[in-house]
Amino acid sequence: MTVWPERMFLCWPAESLLSFTHTMKSHYIGIDLGGTKILAAIATAQGKILARSKKRTLPKKSPILSPEDLTRRIAEMALEVVKKAGLSMDDIVAAGIGAPGPTNIHTGMVFNAVNLPGWEQGFALGPSLARHLGCPVWVDNDVNVGLLGEATYGAAQGIADVMGLFVGTGLGGAIILDGKLRRGFRWGAGEVGHTYLHYPGKMPINVEDVASRGAISKRLAEAMQEGKSPILAELVAKRKDGRITSGVIRKALAAGDATTQAAVAQVQEALAVLIASITNLLDPQAFVMGGGLVESLGDAFLVPIRERTRSLFFVQVRTHEVRIMPAGLGDEAGVLGAVALAQAMQK
Amino acid sequence: MTVWPERMFLCWPAESLLSFTHTMKSHYIGIDLGGTKILAAIATAQGKILARSKKRTLPKKSPILSPEDLTRRIAEMALEVVKKAGLSMDDIVAAGIGAPGPTNIHTGMVFNAVNLPGWEQGFALGPSLARHLGCPVWVDNDVNVGLLGEATYGAAQGIADVMGLFVGTGLGGAIILDGKLRRGFRWGAGEVGHTYLHYPGKMPINVEDVASRGAISKRLAEAMQEGKSPILAELVAKRKDGRITSGVIRKALAAGDATTQAAVAQVQEALAVLIASITNLLDPQAFVMGGGLVESLGDAFLVPIRERTRSLFFVQVRTHEVRIMPAGLGDEAGVLGAVALAQAMQK
Repeated sequence: MTVWPERMFLCWPAESLLSFTHTMKSHYIGIDLGGTKILAAIATAQGKILARSKKRTLPKKSPILSPEDLTRRIAEMALEVVKKAGLSMDDIVAAGIGAPGPTNIHTGMVFNAVNLPGWEQGFALGPSLARHLGCPVWVDNDVNVGLLGEATYGAAQGIADVMGLFVGTGLGGAIILDGKLRRGFRWGAGEVGHTYLHYPGKMPINVEDVASRGAISKRLAEAMQEGKSPILAELVAKRKDGRITSGVIRKALAAGDATTQAAVAQVQEALAVLIASITNLLDPQAFVMGGGLVESLGDAFLVPIRERTRSLFFVQVRTHEVRIMPAGLGDEAGVLGAVALAQAMQK
Repeated sequence: MTVWPERMFLCWPAESLLSFTHTMKSHYIGIDLGGTKILAAIATAQGKILARSKKRTLPKKSPILSPEDLTRRIAEMALEVVKKAGLSMDDIVAAGIGAPGPTNIHTGMVFNAVNLPGWEQGFALGPSLARHLGCPVWVDNDVNVGLLGEATYGAAQGIADVMGLFVGTGLGGAIILDGKLRRGFRWGAGEVGHTYLHYPGKMPINVEDVASRGAISKRLAEAMQEGKSPILAELVAKRKDGRITSGVIRKALAAGDATTQAAVAQVQEALAVLIASITNLLDPQAFVMGGGLVESLGDAFLVPIRERTRSLFFVQVRTHEVRIMPAGLGDEAGVLGAVALAQAMQK
C-alpha cells in the first residue's frame, strides 16, 4: 500500500483527500471465528484498528446455526463494523478470517472444526463469505492467523523463525520458518497440543491433556472435591458459574495455595520440555507465548519455563539464545492476523 | 550441468570428446566423515559413482590426529579416489562433505564434533580442505547430507516434505520442508535424538537413550548379565568382540528371544510416538528411515511402527497418508548427499 507523507494531508483539502482514499481501497476486514465468540475489526494496512465488534458465535436464542447461517451472521457483523468505522465496502481491499480447524488457504475450505456444530465434515467458508461481502476473503487456521498477527504487528515483528504457543482451554501452536507459515502438506501443521508425552512402559498422552488451562482446571476440580484446597474452594464459591478460570488460578497462586502451585508447576515443566524438544528439532529463533493462562499469570508463569529450558537445550548449539517471550496483542492477535493474512494473500 | 545427447558421443572421435569433457568439469567429490570411518567417492552430477574408498577416521597407528592432520588425511583420500576413477582435479567441479556436528554451510565451520577428538571447540573444515584440494568445498552436518542424498538419488526423490530418521548407535534426524533442508537459526535443527520422552512426575530423558541400537544393546547387555537371555548369550559368545550389533539383534529376534523382542518393541513404540508427534507438529509428506538397525531388521522393524502411528495421528487431517519408508542408499547416502550438496551450492 502507498503510504502518503504527512505533509500531503496538511496541504490537501480534507474532502478531496477523503474521496481520493475511497477510490484507493486501503482498509481490511479481520475476523476471528472461535467456538464461543466472533471478533471482527476494520484496520489499515499498518494494523491500526478503526472499529471492532464482538459477538457470541451462536446466539443464546438460536444455539444451533447451520454453517450457511453462521456465515451470514459473520457477514452481517463485518458490514456493521465497516459502517461503524465510517467506511463502505468500496474501501475494503479484502477480508481475512481465522477458523477453528485445518484450512486449505487456496480454496477457503475448512476441513472440519470440531468446536462448531455442523462443521465436522468441512465447509467452504471462503467462497461463502466472499459472496456475502462482495470482496476477496482469505481463510486460514485460527492459530496460524494469531501467530501471523504477532509476527506482523505484535511481539514477533522482524523475527523470521518463530513458534507460537497459545495456552488456553487447549494448547494451540503455529510455526513460522524462514518468514513463512508452515501450514503442512495436508494443512495440518502446528497441532502441538496433539504431540505426545510418552515414557517407556506408559501409554502416550496428548501434551494438551497436561499442559493447558483446561488440564489445570480439571485437576484442581478433582483436588477440590477431595477437600484438598480450601483456598480454591473459597475463590470458586464466589463465582456464579463455579468455574476454575485463569483468573481464579492467578488468585489461588497469589494466596499461596500449594495444590494450585503444584498443578501450575506441572504445566510449566511440560511446556519447558516441549519447548526444548521443538528447539532441538527445529532450532527456531524464538517462541511467542500467549493464550488466557499466559496472559493471566504473566511473568510468574513464563520465567520458570525460560529457566528450565536452559538445562534441556542441546548443548552443541547456542540454543540458550532462544527467546521465549509473551505475546503482545492479546485478544486482537486474531483480527490483526486476519488483516495481515488478507494483505499478504492479495499481493 | 549440461547433459550431452547420446548421438554426440557416436559421431565424435573418442579422444576429442575426452579432452572436451575434461575442460567441462563435470564430476564431484563426495565425502562422508564419521567418528569411526571416512567414505569418499567420485560421482557424476547424476549420482553415478565412478570410484570409492573407505578408511578408518583415525589410523590404528596414530589414533590421535589434529583437525589439520585429519583434513590432510581426507584430502589424500579424495585425491586417491579421483586418480582411481581415471580423472584429475581438473575434472572436479566441487567437493561436498558431511561432518559429524552442527555446521555453518556458508563458512564451512563445524562448530563442534563430539565424536572427533580435538574438534570440540570447532574447526573451519571447509576452507582447510579447499586449500588442500584446490576446488570449492561445501560442508554440512552429516545427517542433513544423508537426507539430501536420499532426496536427490534415493528413496525420497520428488518428495518436497520429508523427515529422515537414522537409527544406529544414536538417533539422527534431518528435515526437508518445501524442498529445502531446515538447518535452523543456529545450524542446529534436526537433533531429534535430543528431543524428550517426558511424563508427569518423571525426569525427561533423551529419545536417543531409548530409541537407538545403542540403547537396545545396553539394555540387552544388562539382561544378559542377569542371565535372562541364553539365546543372546550364545550369539554374543560367537563374536570375538562380544558386541551386541544390529546383526546379533536380528538373529536373536529370528530365534524368538523374548527379551530381545521386548527391547525392540520398546524402541518401535518410542519411534512411532515420535513420528506421530512430529507429524502432528509439522505435517510432512513422508518419513525416510535408515541407519544400521533399520537396514538390518528391515520390514519386520518398520511395519509395526507404521501401524502404530495410525492410531496416534491427529484425526482431523489425512495423516494416515503419511508415508514411512526405508532409506534406499544405505552406506552411500552420505557420499551421494555430499555430491548433491556440492552441486546445489555451486549453482
